[in-house]
Amino acid sequence: MKLIYFADTKRKEVAEAVEIFRKFAEGKAEILENCFGRKNCADYAGIADIAVVIGGDGSILHAAHSLLGAGIPAAGINMGRLGFLAEFSIEHLEEHFNQIFEGRFAVEKKLLINCEAAKKDGTVERVCALNDIAINSGRPFNTIEMEIEVNSSPVTSCVGDGIVVCTPTGSTAYNLSAGGPIISNDVEAVCITPLNPHSLSFRPVVVDSRKVIQIYPISVNDGSSVNADGQTIAELKDVESIKIEKSPQNFEIISNPDSTEWDALAYKLKWAQKPHYKENLEE
Amino acid sequence: MKLIYFADTKRKEVAEAVEIFRKFAEGKAEILENCFGRKNCADYAGIADIAVVIGGDGSILHAAHSLLGAGIPAAGINMGRLGFLAEFSIEHLEEHFNQIFEGRFAVEKKLLINCEAAKKDGTVERVCALNDIAINSGRPFNTIEMEIEVNSSPVTSCVGDGIVVCTPTGSTAYNLSAGGPIISNDVEAVCITPLNPHSLSFRPVVVDSRKVIQIYPISVNDGSSVNADGQTIAELKDVESIKIEKSPQNFEIISNPDSTEWDALAYKLKWAQKPHYKENLEE
Amino acid sequence: MKLIYFADTKRKEVAEAVEIFRKFAEGKAEILENCFGRKNCADYAGIADIAVVIGGDGSILHAAHSLLGAGIPAAGINMGRLGFLAEFSIEHLEEHFNQIFEGRFAVEKKLLINCEAAKKDGTVERVCALNDIAINSGRPFNTIEMEIEVNSSPVTSCVGDGIVVCTPTGSTAYNLSAGGPIISNDVEAVCITPLNPHSLSFRPVVVDSRKVIQIYPISVNDGSSVNADGQTIAELKDVESIKIEKSPQNFEIISNPDSTEWDALAYKLKWAQKPHYKENLEE
Amino acid sequence: MKLIYFADTKRKEVAEAVEIFRKFAEGKAEILENCFGRKNCADYAGIADIAVVIGGDGSILHAAHSLLGAGIPAAGINMGRLGFLAEFSIEHLEEHFNQIFEGRFAVEKKLLINCEAAKKDGTVERVCALNDIAINSGRPFNTIEMEIEVNSSPVTSCVGDGIVVCTPTGSTAYNLSAGGPIISNDVEAVCITPLNPHSLSFRPVVVDSRKVIQIYPISVNDGSSVNADGQTIAELKDVESIKIEKSPQNFEIISNPDSTEWDALAYKLKWAQKPHYKENLEE
Repeated sequence: MKLIYFADTKRKEVAEAVEIFRKFAEGKAEILENCFGRKNCADYAGIADIAVVIGGDGSILHAAHSLLGAGIPAAGINMGRLGFLAEFSIEHLEEHFNQIFEGRFAVEKKLLINCEAAKKDGTVERVCALNDIAINSGRPFNTIEMEIEVNSSPVTSCVGDGIVVCTPTGSTAYNLSAGGPIISNDVEAVCITPLNPHSLSFRPVVVDSRKVIQIYPISVNDGSSVNADGQTIAELKDVESIKIEKSPQNFEIISNPDSTEWDALAYKLKWAQKPHYKENLEE
Repeated sequence: MKLIYFADTKRKEVAEAVEIFRKFAEGKAEILENCFGRKNCADYAGIADIAVVIGGDGSILHAAHSLLGAGIPAAGINMGRLGFLAEFSIEHLEEHFNQIFEGRFAVEKKLLINCEAAKKDGTVERVCALNDIAINSGRPFNTIEMEIEVNSSPVTSCVGDGIVVCTPTGSTAYNLSAGGPIISNDVEAVCITPLNPHSLSFRPVVVDSRKVIQIYPISVNDGSSVNADGQTIAELKDVESIKIEKSPQNFEIISNPDSTEWDALAYKLKWAQKPHYKENLEE
Repeated sequence: MKLIYFADTKRKEVAEAVEIFRKFAEGKAEILENCFGRKNCADYAGIADIAVVIGGDGSILHAAHSLLGAGIPAAGINMGRLGFLAEFSIEHLEEHFNQIFEGRFAVEKKLLINCEAAKKDGTVERVCALNDIAINSGRPFNTIEMEIEVNSSPVTSCVGDGIVVCTPTGSTAYNLSAGGPIISNDVEAVCITPLNPHSLSFRPVVVDSRKVIQIYPISVNDGSSVNADGQTIAELKDVESIKIEKSPQNFEIISNPDSTEWDALAYKLKWAQKPHYKENLEE
Repeated sequence: MKLIYFADTKRKEVAEAVEIFRKFAEGKAEILENCFGRKNCADYAGIADIAVVIGGDGSILHAAHSLLGAGIPAAGINMGRLGFLAEFSIEHLEEHFNQIFEGRFAVEKKLLINCEAAKKDGTVERVCALNDIAINSGRPFNTIEMEIEVNSSPVTSCVGDGIVVCTPTGSTAYNLSAGGPIISNDVEAVCITPLNPHSLSFRPVVVDSRKVIQIYPISVNDGSSVNADGQTIAELKDVESIKIEKSPQNFEIISNPDSTEWDALAYKLKWAQKPHYKENLEE
């Protein structure tokens, strides 16, 4: 098996983990290159079998963008902390990577969303996101207003600090902070969640991912921006409309057979943790 | 075209609407029977072409249960108020029903969920729901605890006043009151939403409807119950486990081509209504 | 110093804690009686100096009701778990109780609310609550409707599963499960929080505790009830109106100088716990 | 009676309203000056009896800052839309202003909060706010972290897009969009509400307004700012600590005897509006 990897070796603990991984892989897999920082790894399509990302969920998010077009699955190795995406641990390589190196692994397909921001100058910004597209206002209190359409059908307008459209993968990121629901991995849907909406009655909406979402800025302010996976791709004041739809591609990730998405929720977000109430309940 | 209908003619405005409908249908469709109150209309399978429900969303909810097995689509006629399910208006029959009587209509398939409550005495209560399965505690402060599994994978435990598992149709009913998201009609998912959970960190979870949800009561109290579309089907203290899964059947509803689900949200729930802020925004 | 105590000695760990406490108190304080289960301890006014409650927050809630009229402060001793009210630990008596037995302690005054439920038969149920008055519907989906007035000024009507009116002490109990805010101890306010409201736009309201809150049932169902600190005091269908106002009395509790209310929030409710995000933040 | 007024007469409808007001006031009150745009009107202390603000709530917010030190109450006149602060209508001057010009009016005291941002260069920014102090992060996903203390007691840290500390007046503004509770006017409290917190378990906290709130930036990003009533007063990266406490002054506003704060909530925010459910309830 041939593999590329992504590791920010300027970080000491990552460099150490790379050493551990290299030793472990010796004689089992051929390590081609550290692609960290490369924008595009499509040239490894058909050459590498898998990509290994050493770091946390943030590292995988970056690698996912580089791997678009390469069509190879990624395995995320964390350094001590379970992640939503970095499901394997550098401390327990032997538990799973012997099998992975033999090509025995299950792949989970993660929904990707394409975003096209059509600008007033006639150009179009195109980007693909694994987590979310967020439209954020600039300085506070300068609320922005947008119109939302789903499959050309007007849905509602939204006044507030902005809006997030997330994938199931991204539902546990910014969406969750904004009050959105958790969406399980295999649901074919995206969620539209407002950011500090002025309307008391606005609620997140879960929409079939095969639908096309259009967002039209009505009133914006300086500093408002369109962001994909946390990176600004356009100033909102230059944008005429934003189209978000399912990407024909998926991001493929090698899943850990010993861990469920619920484990990660409980561990990372302390989701649904019980209070120290027991005594009361007994009384 | 042959049709059955559902109408609670003891209600004066419903009786009047039936008269209006009868007159309008004369010579265009053959009206077979008022099936209101009948538990099962499966004998009309292959005989009636459609079912017309005259009343509000609640009437359609009841009719949906009767029509299981009949396999005919329903058209809901409201009396003045747009509904999520009762999409047609008695005041504008001519706009849509000429076409419907000619068999020209689009059908929307609504996800149904089956619930099996396995009881300690070995019997099983089975029911099908269009909106939701709700597990509710009895008198307040006697909180209940349940374990939740999805496809045999432990998800979390839930301590509080109960839990709701809803379909997209039911997402705008009890689920919404409990803080859950709106789920668009064609999303293949159900939502698990806690009722007044003790955990500060519990959030609604949207799960693929092809998954099987199991709920195990851990500690319950007198008066706790399992409810399908608002009807109690079992006392929770008699129940060992509750299995919820997608029904192989759908509820088919004739949709109004001039109205979207977003219209109903805006009208019925005053969803996403803007505040009277305009003046401020201009300043 | 003379003291009474409250301890449910049928519970083994409570009985053991009582023994530890008795030994510790020997020669330092005179222990008069175990008042557990007594409804009224007003006869100890002027006789006992303090009341010691051995148990959790639930035990103190019960003792608070018994101590109305006695006018003596209570010290809560938990058995291993910090509580909002049970601030002292049986394992560290020497740290605080030597001082307490010498009369050196600070007292925190907790707001109590009086509730008068005026019944249709002309009688009035009166009760005093430390946590909250909750009005709950019976079986699910049989939503209830109430009109709320503050100082005779109509505030709003509320359709849903009910309503909670809580003190600052009770803000971390049922109110929090229902989505209400945390109210710090010394705020002179109560919070009105709806239970699963039908209105998307309902929000909790914090009201000056010197105001009088009136609640009028508009439509109720069998099984709806009025509850004070978790105990049913009236069936809602028998009730014409419910008046809630600040009690002229307070519940006095001896506070732990080494612990803040924020400690209890962080410990008991895992309030504001950070996710395991650190790695991401560094990236 | 002598009065000053605030009116942005560049706005046509405001200029027209000023004319209506002038005519109405002729012979009843002496109009001194349009103070719109003036930063400080303290020189009118003892000279003018009241200030009249013609515009919406935003206009009054601006005027409130100018009137600090003048010690005269303000009456807000809206142009067609009821406001929280602009309680009188230009269309119904005769209903209330004859009495007001005779000095017969009730004044409502609004809590003001002082904010001191101590900067790393040793200087201090001081500002007084009627609505809120908001600390906001810059570009999205660059979350910030702050430590919060109340009366020198550590409360919690907060990771997310920022934090809002609001007065009761401000509770219906940014705080409400961020999920905070409504706080009635006469409650002596402020509310600390997080903006898109990373912690699932963070809840708004209502704190006695006599307490001192200290906020310490732990990790910030470029573009993070400290804002008072929507105006940026400092870049967060230059700030060492932020102290928020009750101002010894109040903002005095002439209240409309025919309108309650609940009316404004229902009108402006469509608070607690019932859904179009009636039909269902009847069924």
